[in-house]
Amino acid sequence: MDQGFSRPFRHDRLTPYIEIDAQRLERNLQRMQQKADKAGVGLRPHVKTHKSVAIARRQMALGAVGITVSKPSEGVAFIRGGIVDLLLAYPVVEAESLRELLLEAQLHQARVSCIAADLMAIDAIAGAARRQRCERLPVYIKVDVGLGRVGIPATDSPLAIALARHIERQGLRFAGLVAHAGHAYGAHTGEQIAAIAAQEAQQLKTLGALLRQAGFTRCALSVGATPTALGAPLAEGIDEQRPGNYALLDLTALRLGLCQAGDLAMTVVTRVVAVNDRYAIIDAGSKALSSDRGPHGTGASGWGVAVNADNHQHYQVEKLSEEHGFIPHHGTPPPLGSLMRIFPNHSCAVMAMFNHYVLRNAQYDGEILPIDARGAFI
Amino acid sequence: MDQGFSRPFRHDRLTPYIEIDAQRLERNLQRMQQKADKAGVGLRPHVKTHKSVAIARRQMALGAVGITVSKPSEGVAFIRGGIVDLLLAYPVVEAESLRELLLEAQLHQARVSCIAADLMAIDAIAGAARRQRCERLPVYIKVDVGLGRVGIPATDSPLAIALARHIERQGLRFAGLVAHAGHAYGAHTGEQIAAIAAQEAQQLKTLGALLRQAGFTRCALSVGATPTALGAPLAEGIDEQRPGNYALLDLTALRLGLCQAGDLAMTVVTRVVAVNDRYAIIDAGSKALSSDRGPHGTGASGWGVAVNADNHQHYQVEKLSEEHGFIPHHGTPPPLGSLMRIFPNHSCAVMAMFNHYVLRNAQYDGEILPIDARGAFI
Repeated sequence: MDQGFSRPFRHDRLTPYIEIDAQRLERNLQRMQQKADKAGVGLRPHVKTHKSVAIARRQMALGAVGITVSKPSEGVAFIRGGIVDLLLAYPVVEAESLRELLLEAQLHQARVSCIAADLMAIDAIAGAARRQRCERLPVYIKVDVGLGRVGIPATDSPLAIALARHIERQGLRFAGLVAHAGHAYGAHTGEQIAAIAAQEAQQLKTLGALLRQAGFTRCALSVGATPTALGAPLAEGIDEQRPGNYALLDLTALRLGLCQAGDLAMTVVTRVVAVNDRYAIIDAGSKALSSDRGPHGTGASGWGVAVNADNHQHYQVEKLSEEHGFIPHHGTPPPLGSLMRIFPNHSCAVMAMFNHYVLRNAQYDGEILPIDARGAFI
Repeated sequence: MDQGFSRPFRHDRLTPYIEIDAQRLERNLQRMQQKADKAGVGLRPHVKTHKSVAIARRQMALGAVGITVSKPSEGVAFIRGGIVDLLLAYPVVEAESLRELLLEAQLHQARVSCIAADLMAIDAIAGAARRQRCERLPVYIKVDVGLGRVGIPATDSPLAIALARHIERQGLRFAGLVAHAGHAYGAHTGEQIAAIAAQEAQQLKTLGALLRQAGFTRCALSVGATPTALGAPLAEGIDEQRPGNYALLDLTALRLGLCQAGDLAMTVVTRVVAVNDRYAIIDAGSKALSSDRGPHGTGASGWGVAVNADNHQHYQVEKLSEEHGFIPHHGTPPPLGSLMRIFPNHSCAVMAMFNHYVLRNAQYDGEILPIDARGAFI
């Protein structure tokens, strides 16, 4: 088993809790920033992964051009935390849902950009902007590059041009194109990931060129997903990227070959509360670890790698009930009461469960920090 | 499609949000209380389902003898909410984890009982009780009746007697036996559920009789799981039952034949934020609906029944990303921007995601109530 799964344990807290290794986090943040800097691409991290103002501020300090948020209320939490440049990468269909975000942005002099893929979204954003007297709020057109979720078809340049015109007509500013190649989580090889990244860039560049020809000379191109950001070179001609998971990483990223076990910055520290003839039972279930097998339904088997503090054995989490995890011990049970560290499938899902996390520094002292935007769905 | 899935929509809030139908909730609560009363069995609802003080208070007002909680911190939230009789149905292996719960219990004159299945748990409870000067804190022995999670084997009466003696020796009070037939969620027919319930009762009664013979004359027998509580008659000789999910119910209960669609009290109200050629996309994903397919890994297909407010069509949620749900529309797309009500697989998991819920009365006015114990894992 990879040495990267072995980390010190500190017996100083009740379990379960999220532990983030400050050194691994810092290394993950620096690497991505350096890669972006070298390619001359702006990095706008998606903060839905960690939902933590402290981590977002560190990302900004390292050189991020701003952050990406997934819901308006998530954006509110980060504006209150001092972040002043945000892209809301989520389709808005009614003006009311932007009210609080734009108000907070005004109070704190933060810049908010939005995305749209249809007239209704543009009208909703325009309505909200007018009410808040936001002049020329930047709006990107969302392009579907293969995930099949939100966005106009990359080949539909007449629609893109019509939407860009509608954006300008509504008193907003057409800012460019955004894409999310989330289908890269379904890739099986590095070549497939690189191909998806190249195709995404090509689709955006082609559409962007047609928009520039139509008179929209300022058309930034923004991509973003951790598999393509880590697993492929940054394509020429792209202006911005928005990966999120790279900050913490997880078993899904490891399985995709995007990182080493030694890069996994987030774990859940649990305790063995029962041992029977088949299973060790830990005090974290689906309400702590989530039932996620991986982003976008990527099918992992099991719910995490488990490392015991006392016998140093590695196990697998086989199933979960709400507050219990089932770990088959195959005749080598961990001691009752011992600590067990879980490397989860999907760090973004786990962060969304807890109110706080413990940031462990090199001396393994812990600082308790809030997960500021937890529960921010609206 | 069952008429029970059709409910009025009120366009008065931003989405997504949890909506609880007050009438359905009240009917579910009353039915279970009446069944318990008729059988002369105490009802001690498990509040991990709703985590709501308001609902627990209603359960108490209807006649519950107390509540069941799954973690000490969950108990703290309910004691602060005025509940004064709690069973902590979770194995404790260190004294420190009970400190706050017992302190709150003392402050509010609440009675707390615990469970144990080994010496370490008993010693931990005893240590916490001594520190807080709790006299003769009641401790139940947890019996594994087939789930394979926590508990002594039902056939191991020497172990049960040894543990009961250790409980008394440690200055605690042996209170009886508790079991949770969670494996009933894996049943395929009503007969299987009834058989599991009968077997559970028989196991507890046999072991209880042996404990009484050994001098433990006060030995209450407590069972509890919604499948057996709803799907089987209450067995003779059982003193208490602790179902939880019956309050809200969900598609899992419906699939097991435990209820009708018209009993499903909890839904998530979402909005269609995008429509493509294959999917309608709603503004709730795994961070709102959870990735649960059902309790204890019962394998449902899909993540919920979806009912549209405008075209009244019924759909299925096919997959989830973090903040988006994918609903195949098979050529009959719901309108962009329309409301879509989701009946989830597992209501307990969804309640654990949100900070609040909206309780809708008969006039469909909404009251916003906190999910008091959300995030209480410790």
